[in-house]
Amino acid sequence: MYPKKFENLIECLRKLPGVGLKSAERYAFDMLEYSEEDINDFIQSLEDLKTSIHHCERCGNLSEDNLCEICKDNRRNKNIICVVQHPKDVIAMEKTNEYHGVYHVLNGVISTSKGIMPDDINLMTLLDRINDETQEIIIATNPTVEGETTALYISKLLENREVAVTRLAHGLPMGGHLDYADELTIIKAMEGRIKIK
Amino acid sequence: MYPKKFENLIECLRKLPGVGLKSAERYAFDMLEYSEEDINDFIQSLEDLKTSIHHCERCGNLSEDNLCEICKDNRRNKNIICVVQHPKDVIAMEKTNEYHGVYHVLNGVISTSKGIMPDDINLMTLLDRINDETQEIIIATNPTVEGETTALYISKLLENREVAVTRLAHGLPMGGHLDYADELTIIKAMEGRIKIK
Repeated sequence: MYPKKFENLIECLRKLPGVGLKSAERYAFDMLEYSEEDINDFIQSLEDLKTSIHHCERCGNLSEDNLCEICKDNRRNKNIICVVQHPKDVIAMEKTNEYHGVYHVLNGVISTSKGIMPDDINLMTLLDRINDETQEIIIATNPTVEGETTALYISKLLENREVAVTRLAHGLPMGGHLDYADELTIIKAMEGRIKIK
Repeated sequence: MYPKKFENLIECLRKLPGVGLKSAERYAFDMLEYSEEDINDFIQSLEDLKTSIHHCERCGNLSEDNLCEICKDNRRNKNIICVVQHPKDVIAMEKTNEYHGVYHVLNGVISTSKGIMPDDINLMTLLDRINDETQEIIIATNPTVEGETTALYISKLLENREVAVTRLAHGLPMGGHLDYADELTIIKAMEGRIKIK
């Protein structure tokens, strides 16, 4: 067998999603050739992961501070809130350069099959963010069964609030994921968004 | 964009072999959910990689000490040396439970196309290990062009030495790699090894 400490490294790498024994071994052997600087960078990143990377306390996006860069940016229109499942989706939206509102990142999606309930995702804090000045909630969850369920749940939740609720529309292929869509597709989906409440 | 420190983590993960941006992002987001213990384990493994995992000074296998577990084991027959390309191949051989000699790990293979010369791999130290009591050198490099070249080079190198040189034979599929072979195939190859010098 490999030395115990090398086995430990392989075990750590196997915990990564979709990584089996052969891949983990391949990664570990590759890392044997790393310079000390490369390893130190990696260790520093992991230290930062523990201490410096949080969720924005307002919108749930990734952030090094209490508020993320977008929530801190005064040029963004705080009265339009785009609800996405994942921080990756914020990146995908931002690449279009067409959206100037703010975000609300659910960090998950309602899934009856996986037992993920509305309280398990960052959803209820959205209600606290909506005030008299809020004009529109754009629901940009993925066009999957779970994303649609979540969109429907949010629209029901906001039924009695004085705010427009829209849903990203055509352009996004069904069954796909927002962060894999190209910019034009996302722009089309933004333009074609329809009022669902 | 993601927070700078999160980008750094993604960059570290992208350095792993065969990992592109999407996979690195997936790994990084997965690691956001790690417990502090998981992250500490990972950091400890990387610290150990810097300080505690070396190559055995005799055979080149991975080891936490100067000598690896196999070289330290008095029950192993030191007069039969099996030459392999990689520490993974030692594991593959050991799984057969049929080999009781020791190893010499080249940690590479001669490759004219990649400019890897005999001096670039752990080969010359093999000569120092051969003494009057050495009975056999079993060459178990992979059955690829580079592995065959290396086998041929070693047999030429030992031409004038009083030692038998054999090569793992049938059983291993050409173009394959030793550490992917099943136990039986490796046993077959061990049984059918032929004298090449």
